[in-house]
Amino acid sequence: MANFKGHALPGSFFLVFGLWWSVKYPLKYLNSKVKGTCRSYKCYERLELIEGILKVLFSLVGILAEQFVPDGPHMHLVNHEDQSWVKLMNWQHTTMYLFYGISGVVDILTYLPLKVPHGLDRLSLSVAVFIEGILFYYHVHNRPALDQHIHSLLLIAIFGGAVSIMVEVFLRNHIVLELLRSSLTILQGSWFWQIGFVLYPLGGAAEWNQTDHENIMFITMCFCWHYAVALLIMAINYSLVYCCVSRNKKLSGDTNLVIRKSNSKEAEAEASLLAGSDEE
Amino acid sequence: MANFKGHALPGSFFLVFGLWWSVKYPLKYLNSKVKGTCRSYKCYERLELIEGILKVLFSLVGILAEQFVPDGPHMHLVNHEDQSWVKLMNWQHTTMYLFYGISGVVDILTYLPLKVPHGLDRLSLSVAVFIEGILFYYHVHNRPALDQHIHSLLLIAIFGGAVSIMVEVFLRNHIVLELLRSSLTILQGSWFWQIGFVLYPLGGAAEWNQTDHENIMFITMCFCWHYAVALLIMAINYSLVYCCVSRNKKLSGDTNLVIRKSNSKEAEAEASLLAGSDEE
Amino acid sequence: MANFKGHALPGSFFLVFGLWWSVKYPLKYLNSKVKGTCRSYKCYERLELIEGILKVLFSLVGILAEQFVPDGPHMHLVNHEDQSWVKLMNWQHTTMYLFYGISGVVDILTYLPLKVPHGLDRLSLSVAVFIEGILFYYHVHNRPALDQHIHSLLLIAIFGGAVSIMVEVFLRNHIVLELLRSSLTILQGSWFWQIGFVLYPLGGAAEWNQTDHENIMFITMCFCWHYAVALLIMAINYSLVYCCVSRNKKLSGDTNLVIRKSNSKEAEAEASLLAGSDEE
Amino acid sequence: MANFKGHALPGSFFLVFGLWWSVKYPLKYLNSKVKGTCRSYKCYERLELIEGILKVLFSLVGILAEQFVPDGPHMHLVNHEDQSWVKLMNWQHTTMYLFYGISGVVDILTYLPLKVPHGLDRLSLSVAVFIEGILFYYHVHNRPALDQHIHSLLLIAIFGGAVSIMVEVFLRNHIVLELLRSSLTILQGSWFWQIGFVLYPLGGAAEWNQTDHENIMFITMCFCWHYAVALLIMAINYSLVYCCVSRNKKLSGDTNLVIRKSNSKEAEAEASLLAGSDEE
Repeated sequence: MANFKGHALPGSFFLVFGLWWSVKYPLKYLNSKVKGTCRSYKCYERLELIEGILKVLFSLVGILAEQFVPDGPHMHLVNHEDQSWVKLMNWQHTTMYLFYGISGVVDILTYLPLKVPHGLDRLSLSVAVFIEGILFYYHVHNRPALDQHIHSLLLIAIFGGAVSIMVEVFLRNHIVLELLRSSLTILQGSWFWQIGFVLYPLGGAAEWNQTDHENIMFITMCFCWHYAVALLIMAINYSLVYCCVSRNKKLSGDTNLVIRKSNSKEAEAEASLLAGSDEE
Repeated sequence: MANFKGHALPGSFFLVFGLWWSVKYPLKYLNSKVKGTCRSYKCYERLELIEGILKVLFSLVGILAEQFVPDGPHMHLVNHEDQSWVKLMNWQHTTMYLFYGISGVVDILTYLPLKVPHGLDRLSLSVAVFIEGILFYYHVHNRPALDQHIHSLLLIAIFGGAVSIMVEVFLRNHIVLELLRSSLTILQGSWFWQIGFVLYPLGGAAEWNQTDHENIMFITMCFCWHYAVALLIMAINYSLVYCCVSRNKKLSGDTNLVIRKSNSKEAEAEASLLAGSDEE
Repeated sequence: MANFKGHALPGSFFLVFGLWWSVKYPLKYLNSKVKGTCRSYKCYERLELIEGILKVLFSLVGILAEQFVPDGPHMHLVNHEDQSWVKLMNWQHTTMYLFYGISGVVDILTYLPLKVPHGLDRLSLSVAVFIEGILFYYHVHNRPALDQHIHSLLLIAIFGGAVSIMVEVFLRNHIVLELLRSSLTILQGSWFWQIGFVLYPLGGAAEWNQTDHENIMFITMCFCWHYAVALLIMAINYSLVYCCVSRNKKLSGDTNLVIRKSNSKEAEAEASLLAGSDEE
Repeated sequence: MANFKGHALPGSFFLVFGLWWSVKYPLKYLNSKVKGTCRSYKCYERLELIEGILKVLFSLVGILAEQFVPDGPHMHLVNHEDQSWVKLMNWQHTTMYLFYGISGVVDILTYLPLKVPHGLDRLSLSVAVFIEGILFYYHVHNRPALDQHIHSLLLIAIFGGAVSIMVEVFLRNHIVLELLRSSLTILQGSWFWQIGFVLYPLGGAAEWNQTDHENIMFITMCFCWHYAVALLIMAINYSLVYCCVSRNKKLSGDTNLVIRKSNSKEAEAEASLLAGSDEE
């Protein structure tokens, strides 16, 4: 759907996941810093399962929306009368959702006892994001300058995310990578909304001049601001989670000292690593 | 051979290897999860040797086919009459097969007692795929838009595969990388067939309009579908192998429990890694 | 500010940081080579904190300078009279400084007891450099050839730096990476000055012919010379630090022997690693 | 010197180093596989020192040749009469040699007791190769198609080499990377000669048609053949070294068994790694 809703829908999906991750990963990280909470590991496994199911559901919603909107292709690919393709744009979006669906299925399988190798869930997510990138890359030929530019900025978020998820295959549970992924996902989500607002102005808003160089310069900057806001949201969520976790701990006994200690231990460990990395 | 057969031949080679790998690596992985099967290591070494020999054979077939088809160069490079080159397209394909042949030879040497360093077999395979990519990259100048596009999509599969194999030099026996390689090889194989069908339609099929933008959009999407099918095939093969392995194990004693245990151990190990990675 | 000062200001900031790092990291490295100085770890932590505060200050200066110079936008983004953008160039530079400010804030937070994960400071610096790169990349459309070329050379320093900092997220305290970062930062700083001199010649100096191919060739070479000078400065600083550290150690007892020993130990360790890396 | 000799000179330098490395690294690797030869570590250190000195000498020869050939710039950069640049091509080549000289100096310093961090020698070599790549990249604007193409193929060898050397900073003494570096250096060397022959045909040889598409196709293929020959040379050298080492060992006692054993140990170790990598 090359209209406002067609951009708002995936944008919302990405925002939901990005925001959720920006809460989940700090929670997981901060909890793991306090010893004696290994029991929660099972709980995270269940969360991943639910995430997988949600991914599949979102993908289904996306696919159905793209196919069965009034002006959609209704699952017809070829118009047999004049041998032309039917609504390829919708089909491309369907394809994009399909791969996120596959990624969701792999997520589910990873946490069922089929012994799917760990890392495959990250790989399939990375593949889904790459496929999205490839589709968008070839999407924007023969479009006005602003349209091309706004989509090419999206590609930065997409391929940045794809590469960072790919690295997660090898460095699983690395908090920095997980936070990077969350922030890039929020960026992608909010940028989809921005694209919708710019290309299909709502209500009586004036249309953007699609060839004005000034507009292109503003959009570049606007993209950076979106990321700044995404980082701000991440920081707020992190602080909130931090408050919750540390209050929780205080109630269940003064383990704050434990945290401090492990912190200073960390410093020592790093210092010795520093000395050791050149000698061993 | 710039015709249907010239694309179907390498396509079949890649499909054979991709499908074979999609069975071999899950088998190796699932067997290794059950302790006490170290004896099978020797067996995999022999398989690699056979693979190497097969690679060399396929390359020879490819080289001979390219050189000695009726309209081939028959090993002549320069036409001495007018100082022009003879059938450079066939020579390029010969070069491509040559490097796969070299990769096969290195495979064989790796498992003979010449003490070739491990990792060299992966490197030579990666080099072969890179060379294929370089040849294809410079292959498509001055061609119609659809021809260029369909080959540039192939390049994604080729360079993706080359990079992932290059990483295997350092992360040998990483199941996720091996599955990725298998899937990209299947994709390459099936895409060669697709290129053949699109550029040289069989029988009385209508020719594709090589400049229609709609066709280009469809081809992009079609590439993604090929990969989706490749992933489906991988999943089916993985499941089949899983069934075989677990039935096998049941017959030779109830080691299923062992698997479960090692699984939960894994979870703990990962949880501790998670906690440890920030502290040490 | 598209004038000389607008390039000299960030250039000076980068030079200050680059030169400081080219002293700090050799100092840290050489001190760590001599055992028994673990106490200095606390001290480096305080230095990082000061660095963070300095980064925030520099960013504030930059933002204020860009916004409130006489011909600046004074925080106005949209001219409501004719719905045009106000001084987008200054706004872009403001955005660039903003991200360095964010990086400074993260630096500060990392060394406060909010338990921000280590590595996040490097990530945020890397993101700031990437954002700078993205802004510059889209900055130079519709400019003369020399202007484009001189900025595209800057991009090499920027993206090179961004990637090397990103690697530091995973390989923290790696002296080679830290030295690379220092040298690329000095290069960026001095190149900003060079851009200023070339595009806005001071005093009565003759303007550069912006389309002459010879000038473009010279600028490419000049960029390499800047890096050679940066490397020379690094070498001088390293030598000075080395002299200081070894004289210091001599005063506080003959630990020079210790250094030699640890050096030969290193050699052995590496030799065994060499032998071991193929066997384990 | 944009003539035959100007390409043959660096080509010879690269060939000398490539061929030397293709002997040195297998020797080092095969020796290290046989236990009890740790004493040879010192010897390799001395070799690296000699290599460094040789690099500096080659660079000096290159710089002097570029500057003081009859039609060279003789250290003049600006023609003060008409404010034009003097022989920028020669100056660019001088710059290229300069960075290889710096790399040589760093090599020398690494093995003197100035405690330069290991890895810096690889970094400086990598930087030298990158600089060469950057200079060549901007070198070929406004040239005929064949000239551009033949240089862009050189860039593949250059940047491939630069990246692989950069990886060596982190994975030092990795035999596969060292062999890759050797082969890419031989390729670079022989390709410089090829460029000389194509662009400046010797004696009465016919000039190449610089715009013929067939010629461009042949050159692409020719590049691959150069690499195939480089690989062949590597294989021959490896075999020769293998023969020497194993004969040597037989004379000084039957340690061949030791090799075999360590080989089978390796296999076991890898098998256990295989099993372990998923569980820990």
